Amino acid sequence: MKANYTLIKEEKNTQARLGILHTNYGDFETPMFMPVGTQATVKTLSPEELKEVKSGVILANTYHLWLRPGEDVVSNAGGLHKFMNWDGPILTDSGGFQVFSLARPKDISEEGVKFKNHLNGDNLLLTPEKSIEIQNKLDSDIAMSFDECIGFPHTREYVEQSVERTLRWAKRGKKVHNNPNQALFGIVQGAEYEDLRHHCIDELVKMDFDGYSIGGTAVGEPKDIQYLQVEYSTKYLPKDKVRYLMGVGDPIDIIENVIRGVDIFDCVAPTRLARHGHALTKYGKINIKNAKYKEDFTPISSDCDCYTCKNYSKSYIKHLINADETFGARLLSIHNIRFLIKLTEDLREAIKEDKILEYKEEFVKNYYENNGN
Amino acid sequence: MKANYTLIKEEKNTQARLGILHTNYGDFETPMFMPVGTQATVKTLSPEELKEVKSGVILANTYHLWLRPGEDVVSNAGGLHKFMNWDGPILTDSGGFQVFSLARPKDISEEGVKFKNHLNGDNLLLTPEKSIEIQNKLDSDIAMSFDECIGFPHTREYVEQSVERTLRWAKRGKKVHNNPNQALFGIVQGAEYEDLRHHCIDELVKMDFDGYSIGGTAVGEPKDIQYLQVEYSTKYLPKDKVRYLMGVGDPIDIIENVIRGVDIFDCVAPTRLARHGHALTKYGKINIKNAKYKEDFTPISSDCDCYTCKNYSKSYIKHLINADETFGARLLSIHNIRFLIKLTEDLREAIKEDKILEYKEEFVKNYYENNGN
Repeated sequence: MKANYTLIKEEKNTQARLGILHTNYGDFETPMFMPVGTQATVKTLSPEELKEVKSGVILANTYHLWLRPGEDVVSNAGGLHKFMNWDGPILTDSGGFQVFSLARPKDISEEGVKFKNHLNGDNLLLTPEKSIEIQNKLDSDIAMSFDECIGFPHTREYVEQSVERTLRWAKRGKKVHNNPNQALFGIVQGAEYEDLRHHCIDELVKMDFDGYSIGGTAVGEPKDIQYLQVEYSTKYLPKDKVRYLMGVGDPIDIIENVIRGVDIFDCVAPTRLARHGHALTKYGKINIKNAKYKEDFTPISSDCDCYTCKNYSKSYIKHLINADETFGARLLSIHNIRFLIKLTEDLREAIKEDKILEYKEEFVKNYYENNGN
Repeated sequence: MKANYTLIKEEKNTQARLGILHTNYGDFETPMFMPVGTQATVKTLSPEELKEVKSGVILANTYHLWLRPGEDVVSNAGGLHKFMNWDGPILTDSGGFQVFSLARPKDISEEGVKFKNHLNGDNLLLTPEKSIEIQNKLDSDIAMSFDECIGFPHTREYVEQSVERTLRWAKRGKKVHNNPNQALFGIVQGAEYEDLRHHCIDELVKMDFDGYSIGGTAVGEPKDIQYLQVEYSTKYLPKDKVRYLMGVGDPIDIIENVIRGVDIFDCVAPTRLARHGHALTKYGKINIKNAKYKEDFTPISSDCDCYTCKNYSKSYIKHLINADETFGARLLSIHNIRFLIKLTEDLREAIKEDKILEYKEEFVKNYYENNGN
C-alpha cells in the first residue's frame, strides 16, 4: 500500500484542514510536525523518545544517506525502518535542497546537478532518476520528486525556466519510481508568482502524484512572501491529497501556514536550537544559558507534558549545556520537538472546534508580548 | 542512615566476597561496577538507562561539580539526587585525583593543594576540610577523604611522607564531616610497599571509617604492581567494611581484583571507549569503525541483554559513529556499561558457587585468544 490521505474536516473560517495520513507503518493525524533525522537518527534521540513525544512521522535525508552509509547498505539492512529501528512512517526528501545548499561548486544542467561530495570531494551527479532510485532503496513510506530548489531573491525569468525544468524532472522521476509501498510526492515551485504556482500545480496534477510538497520556502524569503507562496499553492492543490510544506518549523509559521491549508511540516530547528541551549515555550524562545536560570529549579514549562519538563529543572539543563554534556541537548530536543508536535495537536483541536483564528490570536499574543518571560 | 555493608559470603578458593551495600537510596549487591557521572550526568545517558543496565550506584566528581555549577547550586536544588534526577545511590570522590591530574600548576602543602581552575584560570585551594564540606553539600551517599594521589613511579621516601600526610588529611576531613546521611571512606595509600599499606590501614581503622578505598591505582602502574597494591591492602582491611578500588574498570582487572577481595569499581572507560567507537565483548574490545562491520547486521553481542544489542546492528552503530551522531556514543555507552555490570553479576554468581577461578580462566581465554573476533 502507498501512503494515502483522508480529509476529515475543513475549518469553517480558514483553509485549515484536519486529516489522516495512512501508511504501512501506521496512521497519523494532520496537521503534524515532523522531526528531522538527517542521517537516519533524530539528533541525540532514540526511537522510543520520538514515540513518547508523539512523532507521527519522521524525515530522513536522501543526500546524506546516499553519501553515508550508502543506499545499498540501508537496503541490505532491510530498509530504513529496520536499519534505524523506527517502526513509524518515514518521509525522505529528494536530496535537491542539500545539493543546492551544502554541495559546492555545483553545475546545474538538464541532466541533473553535478557537485562535489562534501565529505570527500568526489565528483558526483544527482539526477531525478538517481534520487528516486536511492529513495526506492531506502524504502521510506513517502518519497519526494527531485526539483530545482532556487534561492531568494530571483528573477521571474529564471523562475519560469526553473518551473519547467522542475516539471520535466518530476516526470522523469515518476517514470522510474518502482516501489509499490512508497508514495511519491510532486513539488510545487513557482516562487511568489501565483500564475507560475498555478501552472506548476496543473501540470503536476496531470502526472497524478500521491501528495504535494510546497517548495521554494525556508530559503531566506521574508515571512509575508512565504505565506503568499503557500496561499498561491494551496489555492490550486487538490483537496484530496496531503500537502507538505518543506523546511518550515517556526511556531508562528506553522500556525500561519496551517491556516493556509498545509498539513505537514518539517524543520531542523527544534534539535538545532536544543544544541545551542534554546528552548521553545509559549512565551517565546528562552536561552537556558542565561544567568537568571542558575538556581531556577522549575521546569522549562510547568504545563508541558514532556519527559524533560516532568523530571528536570532549568538549573540542571543550564548546567549540562554549559558543561557541554550531550544529555542537555537531548533533554532540550525532547522538549522542543514535543512543543511543536503539541502545537499541531492543539491546532487539530482548534480546527475541530472551528476556532483556529482565536487560537492563533491567543498564541501570538503570548509568544511575542511575553517573549521569554 | 549512613551507607553500610553486610558481608554475605567469602569465596572458598580466593579472597573474593559477596556482599550488600545498604544506602538511603536503595541497596546493591557487590562486587559492583559503578559508572562515572563526572558532571552530574553519565555521559549521553539518562537515569532510566542507568537503571536498565542495572547500575546499583554511580559516581560523581567533587572537583567538577565544585567548579561548575558549584556545590551551593546543587545543595539548593535539594542535593545531587534531586538535581540530576537519580534516585539510586551516589558516591562522590574527594577531588584529589582531579587536582593532581587535571589542574596545573599545583602547589602541595600541608594545608592542601593550590591550583588553577582549569575552566577559568582562577587560583583555588582544595583542602581536606573543603573537600568534605563540598561533599556534605552535594549530599552523596558516600564521600571520600581527601588524599594525596601520587603517580607512578616514586621513591619509597616520598611515599612514606605522603602516607603520613594522607593520614593527617583523613583525620582533618573526618573531624569536619557532618552529614548524618553520608558515609565517609578512608583512602589507603602506600604504593607497592606492603608495610606502608599495612601501616596506613591500621591508622585509618583507628579513625573508624565507614568503608575503605584503595588508592594509588590507575595512575600508570604496571598491572602486576596494581594487583600487588590491592593484595597488600585487602590483606589488612577489616572484613566487615566495603572496599572500593578507585579508577579501575578493565574487565580483566575487575576479575583479578575481585579475586583479591575488592567490592566496588569505577572507571570512565566504558563511556570514553564508546565515544571513540569501541565496544567491549567477551572476545575482547572491537572497533566498530572497522570496515568489516559496514554490512554486519548482527548486534555487537548476540547474547547481550542490553537495549543496544536487542535493537541495533553493528552496521547502524558504525554509521552513527562515522557520522558523528551522539546516538552512536549513547548506544555504545549503554552496551559497555551493561557489559561491565553484567561481568560483576557473573562474578557474584561465581562467588556463590565457589567457582571464580574457573570463571576467570574461561573469561581470560575468550578475551585474549579471540581478541575482537
